[in-house]
Amino acid sequence: MLTNPRSDRVRAVRALSRRAVRSRQGLFVAEGPQSVREAVSHRPDLVRGVYATPDAVVRHGDLVQAAVSVGLAVHEVSGEVLAAMVETDAPQGLLAVCRVATASLKDVLALRPRLLCVLINVRDPGNAGTVLRGADAAGADAVVISDNSVDVFGPKVVRSTAGSLFHLPVVTGLGIDEIVEQVRAAGLLLLAADGAGELLLGDVDLSGPHAWVMGNEAWGLPGEVRGRCDHVVRVPIHGRAESLNLAMAATICLYASATAQRRPQ
Amino acid sequence: MLTNPRSDRVRAVRALSRRAVRSRQGLFVAEGPQSVREAVSHRPDLVRGVYATPDAVVRHGDLVQAAVSVGLAVHEVSGEVLAAMVETDAPQGLLAVCRVATASLKDVLALRPRLLCVLINVRDPGNAGTVLRGADAAGADAVVISDNSVDVFGPKVVRSTAGSLFHLPVVTGLGIDEIVEQVRAAGLLLLAADGAGELLLGDVDLSGPHAWVMGNEAWGLPGEVRGRCDHVVRVPIHGRAESLNLAMAATICLYASATAQRRPQ
Repeated sequence: MLTNPRSDRVRAVRALSRRAVRSRQGLFVAEGPQSVREAVSHRPDLVRGVYATPDAVVRHGDLVQAAVSVGLAVHEVSGEVLAAMVETDAPQGLLAVCRVATASLKDVLALRPRLLCVLINVRDPGNAGTVLRGADAAGADAVVISDNSVDVFGPKVVRSTAGSLFHLPVVTGLGIDEIVEQVRAAGLLLLAADGAGELLLGDVDLSGPHAWVMGNEAWGLPGEVRGRCDHVVRVPIHGRAESLNLAMAATICLYASATAQRRPQ
Repeated sequence: MLTNPRSDRVRAVRALSRRAVRSRQGLFVAEGPQSVREAVSHRPDLVRGVYATPDAVVRHGDLVQAAVSVGLAVHEVSGEVLAAMVETDAPQGLLAVCRVATASLKDVLALRPRLLCVLINVRDPGNAGTVLRGADAAGADAVVISDNSVDVFGPKVVRSTAGSLFHLPVVTGLGIDEIVEQVRAAGLLLLAADGAGELLLGDVDLSGPHAWVMGNEAWGLPGEVRGRCDHVVRVPIHGRAESLNLAMAATICLYASATAQRRPQ
């Protein structure tokens, strides 16, 4: 059992809470049983190592067994070591160090996707992660996150995805122009989601292939992005709320798409 | 301008971050321009006083003017005083001390509501607040939060509602049994939302008056509550996500209801 919270290995894992270190090393940390479970089940190829406290080994025996059975190294660590590895208050006794793996937009588009979610300049980690989870649940083919956005491999985003980060392709690092051009060239309709949209969600034909383009939680979409989309669509507000938050609006739009695309013709 | 962060007044406001003090005093704090704006616009009768830094007075001149014009006291305070009044990192220069006002379920039901949202044993403040915001946006008539749940007047919940707390009636303090009996007696269909539900959201007739009953983010709904509802309904998961979070599931259900109830017959 690893018991030295000041060891090089512990410091190296802890350092992954910094974006610069993650991008230099190409590694990130998935914390907690849910994230580790999804990593081990869906993307064991990305997992470099699992760290678990004795308590967690007992409580999540099936998960530890699954990890070992696919050839992953599971390291038992003291509670103090696990706490020193992360910045969270409650790492729940379990984490996995994983390799960062993003998809290329070209590869995603080559598979003729029917439903994409594009996030532009999104900064709030919880919102970004929740959108990813919603996109996964709605059966989206991929999520594209523009440069100038939050790092999807940061601890708060990873936690908010509840494992969905390991379920669907995520494209990062492209500017707005490249994204819009490539998605349009692949024949997908571009739908901007915006509270000031001229079209109501219920009035848009969502049966064909399309991409939802969502903006920053505070500022919405830049005008030039809205202008380059085929339609600007709003989720109706029936009560007195000023708006929905990004994750809620995105989930409603993506579910409307999922329903329309699965409706018997 | 109030400049003493150790004054009795500052301490009294700060003490409202504790649930026991809020419930004894019947007061709570709405922080930040969005919450304060909605309080002043929609429920000035609840506002006991507005506190603003000189910066905020300039930046939110319209809001200060609106508050003064409806007869509210606006106190200018130093940044240090404002920071001492709350526990948040970023109070954004503005807060309102408000009277706690909940509705009685009898009064809510007397108005023949078409759409209610019932939260059972919900503990996560962000989730609870976001559900309230979603219920408002979907045009729900009220939100009912069972006892054993998070205090809706706590700072994190209030912030997550983004002002919706001042838009629609909120019923608190009732046990599960009372809620279920009264809602049923008023003729509303009771729909439990649960990932293990036997009915898909799209297969339920949502055109009549009904209440969505949602459980805790981690444990879902207690079996006996599911058993007392008319249907147990699940939001379909199309991808590989294990589930949606409470706020997302609630928003999708409530919007499905809003759409069904507004559809031309």
